[in-house]
Amino acid sequence: MRLPVASPPLSEPLPDVEADDHFHDHCGVFGVYGHAEASNLAYLGIHALQHRGQESAGIAALEQGNINVHKGMGLVADVFAAKDTLGKLPGDAAIGHTRYSTAGQSVIENAQPMYARTAAGPISVAHNGNLVNTEELRNELSHSGALFQGSSDTEVLLHLVAREKGTPIERIQKALGRVRGAYSLLFLTEDSIVAVRDPLGFRPLVLGRLRGAWVFASETCALDLIEAEYIRELEPGECVVVDKDGLRTLQKLPPQRAGRCVFELIYFARPDSTVFSRSVYESRKALGRTLAKEQPAQADLVIPVPDSGVPAALGYAEQSGLPYELGLIRSHYVGRTFIEPSQSIRHFGVKLKLNPVPAVVRGKRVVVVDDSIVRGTTSRKIVKMVRDAGAKEVHLRISAPPTRWPCYYGIDTPVRSELIAASHTLEEIAKYVTADSLGYLSSEGMHASVQADKRGFCDACFSGEYLVQLTAPEAGVARTH
Amino acid sequence: MRLPVASPPLSEPLPDVEADDHFHDHCGVFGVYGHAEASNLAYLGIHALQHRGQESAGIAALEQGNINVHKGMGLVADVFAAKDTLGKLPGDAAIGHTRYSTAGQSVIENAQPMYARTAAGPISVAHNGNLVNTEELRNELSHSGALFQGSSDTEVLLHLVAREKGTPIERIQKALGRVRGAYSLLFLTEDSIVAVRDPLGFRPLVLGRLRGAWVFASETCALDLIEAEYIRELEPGECVVVDKDGLRTLQKLPPQRAGRCVFELIYFARPDSTVFSRSVYESRKALGRTLAKEQPAQADLVIPVPDSGVPAALGYAEQSGLPYELGLIRSHYVGRTFIEPSQSIRHFGVKLKLNPVPAVVRGKRVVVVDDSIVRGTTSRKIVKMVRDAGAKEVHLRISAPPTRWPCYYGIDTPVRSELIAASHTLEEIAKYVTADSLGYLSSEGMHASVQADKRGFCDACFSGEYLVQLTAPEAGVARTH
Amino acid sequence: MRLPVASPPLSEPLPDVEADDHFHDHCGVFGVYGHAEASNLAYLGIHALQHRGQESAGIAALEQGNINVHKGMGLVADVFAAKDTLGKLPGDAAIGHTRYSTAGQSVIENAQPMYARTAAGPISVAHNGNLVNTEELRNELSHSGALFQGSSDTEVLLHLVAREKGTPIERIQKALGRVRGAYSLLFLTEDSIVAVRDPLGFRPLVLGRLRGAWVFASETCALDLIEAEYIRELEPGECVVVDKDGLRTLQKLPPQRAGRCVFELIYFARPDSTVFSRSVYESRKALGRTLAKEQPAQADLVIPVPDSGVPAALGYAEQSGLPYELGLIRSHYVGRTFIEPSQSIRHFGVKLKLNPVPAVVRGKRVVVVDDSIVRGTTSRKIVKMVRDAGAKEVHLRISAPPTRWPCYYGIDTPVRSELIAASHTLEEIAKYVTADSLGYLSSEGMHASVQADKRGFCDACFSGEYLVQLTAPEAGVARTH
Amino acid sequence: MRLPVASPPLSEPLPDVEADDHFHDHCGVFGVYGHAEASNLAYLGIHALQHRGQESAGIAALEQGNINVHKGMGLVADVFAAKDTLGKLPGDAAIGHTRYSTAGQSVIENAQPMYARTAAGPISVAHNGNLVNTEELRNELSHSGALFQGSSDTEVLLHLVAREKGTPIERIQKALGRVRGAYSLLFLTEDSIVAVRDPLGFRPLVLGRLRGAWVFASETCALDLIEAEYIRELEPGECVVVDKDGLRTLQKLPPQRAGRCVFELIYFARPDSTVFSRSVYESRKALGRTLAKEQPAQADLVIPVPDSGVPAALGYAEQSGLPYELGLIRSHYVGRTFIEPSQSIRHFGVKLKLNPVPAVVRGKRVVVVDDSIVRGTTSRKIVKMVRDAGAKEVHLRISAPPTRWPCYYGIDTPVRSELIAASHTLEEIAKYVTADSLGYLSSEGMHASVQADKRGFCDACFSGEYLVQLTAPEAGVARTH
Repeated sequence: MRLPVASPPLSEPLPDVEADDHFHDHCGVFGVYGHAEASNLAYLGIHALQHRGQESAGIAALEQGNINVHKGMGLVADVFAAKDTLGKLPGDAAIGHTRYSTAGQSVIENAQPMYARTAAGPISVAHNGNLVNTEELRNELSHSGALFQGSSDTEVLLHLVAREKGTPIERIQKALGRVRGAYSLLFLTEDSIVAVRDPLGFRPLVLGRLRGAWVFASETCALDLIEAEYIRELEPGECVVVDKDGLRTLQKLPPQRAGRCVFELIYFARPDSTVFSRSVYESRKALGRTLAKEQPAQADLVIPVPDSGVPAALGYAEQSGLPYELGLIRSHYVGRTFIEPSQSIRHFGVKLKLNPVPAVVRGKRVVVVDDSIVRGTTSRKIVKMVRDAGAKEVHLRISAPPTRWPCYYGIDTPVRSELIAASHTLEEIAKYVTADSLGYLSSEGMHASVQADKRGFCDACFSGEYLVQLTAPEAGVARTH
Repeated sequence: MRLPVASPPLSEPLPDVEADDHFHDHCGVFGVYGHAEASNLAYLGIHALQHRGQESAGIAALEQGNINVHKGMGLVADVFAAKDTLGKLPGDAAIGHTRYSTAGQSVIENAQPMYARTAAGPISVAHNGNLVNTEELRNELSHSGALFQGSSDTEVLLHLVAREKGTPIERIQKALGRVRGAYSLLFLTEDSIVAVRDPLGFRPLVLGRLRGAWVFASETCALDLIEAEYIRELEPGECVVVDKDGLRTLQKLPPQRAGRCVFELIYFARPDSTVFSRSVYESRKALGRTLAKEQPAQADLVIPVPDSGVPAALGYAEQSGLPYELGLIRSHYVGRTFIEPSQSIRHFGVKLKLNPVPAVVRGKRVVVVDDSIVRGTTSRKIVKMVRDAGAKEVHLRISAPPTRWPCYYGIDTPVRSELIAASHTLEEIAKYVTADSLGYLSSEGMHASVQADKRGFCDACFSGEYLVQLTAPEAGVARTH
Repeated sequence: MRLPVASPPLSEPLPDVEADDHFHDHCGVFGVYGHAEASNLAYLGIHALQHRGQESAGIAALEQGNINVHKGMGLVADVFAAKDTLGKLPGDAAIGHTRYSTAGQSVIENAQPMYARTAAGPISVAHNGNLVNTEELRNELSHSGALFQGSSDTEVLLHLVAREKGTPIERIQKALGRVRGAYSLLFLTEDSIVAVRDPLGFRPLVLGRLRGAWVFASETCALDLIEAEYIRELEPGECVVVDKDGLRTLQKLPPQRAGRCVFELIYFARPDSTVFSRSVYESRKALGRTLAKEQPAQADLVIPVPDSGVPAALGYAEQSGLPYELGLIRSHYVGRTFIEPSQSIRHFGVKLKLNPVPAVVRGKRVVVVDDSIVRGTTSRKIVKMVRDAGAKEVHLRISAPPTRWPCYYGIDTPVRSELIAASHTLEEIAKYVTADSLGYLSSEGMHASVQADKRGFCDACFSGEYLVQLTAPEAGVARTH
Repeated sequence: MRLPVASPPLSEPLPDVEADDHFHDHCGVFGVYGHAEASNLAYLGIHALQHRGQESAGIAALEQGNINVHKGMGLVADVFAAKDTLGKLPGDAAIGHTRYSTAGQSVIENAQPMYARTAAGPISVAHNGNLVNTEELRNELSHSGALFQGSSDTEVLLHLVAREKGTPIERIQKALGRVRGAYSLLFLTEDSIVAVRDPLGFRPLVLGRLRGAWVFASETCALDLIEAEYIRELEPGECVVVDKDGLRTLQKLPPQRAGRCVFELIYFARPDSTVFSRSVYESRKALGRTLAKEQPAQADLVIPVPDSGVPAALGYAEQSGLPYELGLIRSHYVGRTFIEPSQSIRHFGVKLKLNPVPAVVRGKRVVVVDDSIVRGTTSRKIVKMVRDAGAKEVHLRISAPPTRWPCYYGIDTPVRSELIAASHTLEEIAKYVTADSLGYLSSEGMHASVQADKRGFCDACFSGEYLVQLTAPEAGVARTH
């Protein structure tokens, strides 16, 4: 096997990388209009969406034409830990945001919801997605005198809104006409919430109802927590406004090619959510069942890499008839604050998070089901861990095709050279992760499992078929929310 | 159904109670002798034992006859978050402790390891268990001039050690002759670690080896994390010392009646651990299988209350032939710092932690498997949650007998009047939790499942048969570590 | 005496007001160009200027064309307390800022130095003063699409700079042509520092030299701390740039009417500073001497209200021949964090800060010298305190004329209705503060003492003669830096 | 001049040392009995005594026989900053403590008030002073089984109290019979406050009255803040108890040799206090007057080293007829948290705290008055600073004799080898500090000035005449409170 020197993941991974070698979703958004405790609901809503971003959190609330914002770095519970924080966000409409970001961009200037005072009044925005033509827009804006505080594409969007003419809603619509890319957006204006999905509908956005109030959220799990009723998915390209006159759709596209992110179903969304009108849990089980058909294994039992691999492993077990066991235990107490001891005994990475159950795997041929292999370093450790606990054979099964391409539509992915499947064969990967066998789900199997015809979903991270053309500067860099 | 007025759990539970209605173990202990990074290992060890106590954490390390201690309120990762904390605990022997406690006693004075300078040199101690004759000892000590800083029984033990004569080890042995109750203890003296289990062996304690070093821990999961080899369980009544001359057993009892806590196997220990020479995971699966035999249900599927109910639910599904599904999702982001919004939308309790998967339970007859019902309030919410998500029937199955009696041997249990099974019939409980049917495991089934003959285990919380006589003052109060 | 109901200071003052009833300067600025430890020097510089603002602090440093900024709420020592903060501000040019603000505007968005990325590169600015035509500029900018983050006039100035054309320096000069008001400004561009004083020169700004580096500061005490040499005051209307080609004056006005703030000499500046080419200490002593001539008292001794009243009291004592004593002791330990006990024993205000020395004042006729009376509440307490300590008579002497008008040029003053001298006679004030006699310095005496001919200084807070016309919106509100 | 190699202060002082080269008092104590807001008053009381110790603070309050304690490291305002802290200390009697300590002993275990539960009930104690025979007592106690948490002599005292027989008051009196050294003590028992001064009365303690309540404090400035009336000094050897039956003296010694600490009058106490029945301010002025007589100077003006040198400088100026000026300005913003920049520009030490006023000293012959020279490093920097600001001559005058001996009675002093006057002649010191002349007050002049006949005061730090015999272990080490 030829492993090129320049291929970093196969040599010395960073401890943080080891501990969580996944693609990462970049944001959760939540909005509520018409409830006396809007900011309290927003707090609960973004808490339910915490899995979509753990690096910053914020809420903007509308009170009599004024918008108050509180945001900070850290988890929702920490950002809003001080006693009176929510009390300082009165009003009956609010939007919230929770954000993941790569280290370099993890700064408060990029935290959301963003806010500015404009000629059309105060405006705040929460964005899930990534715009791909912001470099040229930023240059243009800059040359006509715009000031930029941070490096985010959402700030570019706010500038565009401020420079258009008309009502806040007209400005928002005109500004959106100038951007390309992935966005599920919630705008809070002086008297309304405007909710928009990009024409391809990359990122999810759902609509719910809580008695008289309207609710928007990235996933239905946020509706469930506040006991709101799920109404429907916003459609790709749809723009909805809710104000004192109620909810209305301002714009809707005819049925067309869409680009829903299939990885939401594979890994990002919470299993108890409905996204893209599909049960995430059922989708994952179906992926596992198809995987069992396509990639059977002579084995004694099936175990998931918890927690994300559980539904696919259940599907695999069901289809294959092999017993399902919880052979790896996930610790509840691993967070970002854990300081590893600094000397010879470091590099605990995955071990701090996962521990095998020897009684389950000892002497057994074990199928380990996971949802993806990014760099391969974590998989390698998991296989070793299971084998060290006594497994006779370890067969790794992945409930998705190989991830070979970076995402430019709102997902944090490594550069291509770090994606092990981009430059290595199946055999090389199997050897690197030290598995007795390795099997990925096929692209067809994936689409069939989640009932995702290729015209409705984006699978660029597997196929390299990007649906929105990138302009030059973005091509090299995924800047996201 | 007769519901007495004085029965608080059936009316207005406290939010905190709702969120975690379990018995709680009171401590984890860890020790290492003969490793250059003793405090770093202790840090990892107590991190692995974090599930045994989340309210305070501490480490005492031995360096050339001196003992340095660092302890604080909070999780292990928080208490040791400051950069140089572990660097200030040099030396090649260390003991660590992680502690749960009820609110009133949650003070730094009671945090462990405890430390004092005595005529036999510095001494530190980490204690898992509860002594039952401390009131009379405290009175006696007090009248002869002892100063008490806190309210813990471990402090009483330290006074006894200080007042005996001889070497530190002789003093420890003599002092232990005066106390009664449950204890797995690690003493750090000026040149050794002394590890002891009480004669009935209520709480677990295992011995491991990491190259040349000796390791002690409440459970094997702490050995696994640091990649130490599991040697054996310390026996009830055994006293072991390790110093520069190596490890030796100072005292051992002939085989006799023992009192291992059966609840360690049912709920407290981590499923990947071995305690009392039994795999916790396998024990829980066996409980689930027996439960399926004793308490079958006409149903479509089996779901656990995650995470603790998972193995028993797998056993139940395996035995019953019903499909196993993950119908309830547990949030990773609920910690003690979560501030509930303070107005009409409060009381989220269980909902913040668990959310049903409607796609799984909708229209189904569901068996929900949990390990215990304490006050009943959480079970009631879970049943309601599953039913609201669309389940046609909800059959609650408990993988242990009804918990009717408080524990005085190191477990935090409510007073008897709060234990719903202490004063209500099966039918009353079923009605209160709104389940279509309710079934507990029998006492015989429990003992058979975990291969726990009644002469080897304590089941007082189910049977009321207490193995160590309580002195008057303790009878009313469970004071624990 | 007629005390109108609507006059708030004479009834129930807020505790905070009591403790510090002074006008407040709004900022200190500091800059250094050409020193390898620019941000370290800036840190020391703004620490020396801490008396000019205690609510936020910040530093912007220039490294190879990039500007890094760190700022926060609180004292300089606190904002930069974290270990590596200054290390993250490398480069050989830096500007710093320390800010006071009224409660409502005390938000991080208004903290300085402000920063933005513009078409002319990154730019940062530190501002001492207040612009008086920002409302109209903000409207104009807003209507052409500008986004505003906060409420500060400095942000308006940054927008103007971004919208002009040309080099950064050309843009700055053009932008300044559009603003009116008080400003001593330090701009940090991608390759220079630009230092400017407004045409009337309200606020001070001095130039110094530290070996090869150039230094700018509000007061000379900042030069002293870093052992830089004082070169000269920047002149009103002067604009200086320093870059790799050295220092040069870009613009200078012919001698004309100026508006140096006389209150800098009376109270704001540190006594060890030179501002407006005058020794602050000597100026205050001269004010005290003139006060003694104009307002003699039949008394036994002179005491200052420490620390600001000390030089004037020394001058008064010297001129009058009366002994000078330190009859009031100022506590070193009163800061903003002091929480007053919350029940019947509150309202300690001034007492926490000042305590009389009974041995000094007992049985004596005492002249108390202070620099100003704003609301009168503090003076009342001080007079009472001295009398309670045994003084036979208390004669209050103020080393400035009555303060009757608010300032719009960078000083935080209460609204006119709260200025006791705006609506009450000398007799009424004397009666309110319970002094046996009260004497203010005359306007002529003030000007003569500080050698401040009326054409060179602004005394609007005493005379109501405002030198820069206010536009309507500003007339009612003093918005400051 | 011969400067021995081993003499550290003349070479490389630590930055901290530079900034504050004084002897330090080790504690302030405060107590109140019979007031509904006892802990609030204690908070204010120890705040007023903050100058006596800045490293830890604490309050113990008595409520219906129970004692609650809150203490922590840091300033009073910080330790009690959290909102409800004082609310958790209910009751109508309380004692408070504020503590200075050397670095090694600055640990929470040594913070006061100390507390323990004993056979005589709960007991808490606040101690100002130092016991000199604790090593032998600690050994004795340890051998009979006592546990020690920290290294403080106050803990030894608590053990002695716990081991005696009888009522709490009887135990306290018996225990005090066993200790030697300096102590002003406040005990809080289950129903009383007991206040005691050691037979020589080293440290001050005064009695006051606030309406019906009795108040104890180290200095009268604490009485002043809460507006309590000063009744009298407790006498050396006096023991007073206050309980529900009122205040009574339990024990009083006949007039005899006493050892009041003369340094309290020279430097430690606040100038607005009365200690040892003398006005501190007047005492210091008298020292300055005598100094002017003994050590005149051909000079133009007198300046103090602020703030402590002010009264003596006023006395010197008054006696000499030279003008008094404030030629050095003290910054209000220097606290313990100031982090010095870490590279070539460090060592700001004294400059951060003091800055000369060039306008005052330029071209002048200046007398600088300070209260002591410890290591000489600070004096050297001050002399240089004044000379650099333009003084023609600098004449240093010290309002006390040379400090040549360490204190064992509650004051933090360097070891003898660091006291510059212990090993150097007047000429050597003058040369080292670079003064044109140097003059100390004589011992006779000091005693006469403060009306302190040698039989009533301790001056061991000047004379080496120790009034209480030290036991061997203490002889080498000053352990203090």
